[in-house]
Amino acid sequence: MTTTVTMSALEVADPERSARFYTEALGLKRVQDVTGSDFEAVLVGSPGGRGAMLELARHHGREGGVEHGSGFWKLCLSTGDVAGLYGSATAAGARPVSPPRPLPGLESMSFALVEDPDGYLVELVGPASG
Amino acid sequence: MTTTVTMSALEVADPERSARFYTEALGLKRVQDVTGSDFEAVLVGSPGGRGAMLELARHHGREGGVEHGSGFWKLCLSTGDVAGLYGSATAAGARPVSPPRPLPGLESMSFALVEDPDGYLVELVGPASG
Repeated sequence: MTTTVTMSALEVADPERSARFYTEALGLKRVQDVTGSDFEAVLVGSPGGRGAMLELARHHGREGGVEHGSGFWKLCLSTGDVAGLYGSATAAGARPVSPPRPLPGLESMSFALVEDPDGYLVELVGPASG
Repeated sequence: MTTTVTMSALEVADPERSARFYTEALGLKRVQDVTGSDFEAVLVGSPGGRGAMLELARHHGREGGVEHGSGFWKLCLSTGDVAGLYGSATAAGARPVSPPRPLPGLESMSFALVEDPDGYLVELVGPASG
């Protein structure tokens, strides 16, 4: 068995709000709710089980929003419909960063950028026709 | 085609150092080198192509190390050999955070925690026998 990147865990202000965003606006599926001694989290992932999961967590006593620092750059999601997801994400309140356009050096693909409800940068990548 | 979490991109002080750590100590495979107008990055992922990729990036002008903030919590890797990877990671200079022990509520699995060369928390999860 080889090593596999199975999940990234992000601190969010409100796991329920984030779970709604990633499922209703971005097409992921709610996989599991997790309650730890010092945190609550919702896991979301691909409806088909491919790729990795995303853990949307809030540690107790961490109210007041996320302090981003310079560490996490972006989360990348693949989709067959970049324009559609970009539209639903921004309609759900995501800050638009860059509308769909061809991926530099790979014109058959397009990408778009939004910020999720906590200000995490999310890149949507898929076929240019989508 | 459904939405899939395909990659998380992290800012690192030295993409080559990070790529060596994730390939030589943690068993991932170097997938691709990427040079953008304002960054350099190395993509690593599972040798079998499962799960997600990790983009280890350094933006120009961002010397001086990563400022972690409160956003990114942890990266989770699955492996068949938690104890072996914990050993090779700490031998490669990763800061040990928690040695292998049973996963609370799921005793057939074990987990361990280390910090990668930039201080990102990495959780190793796998069968308790591994």
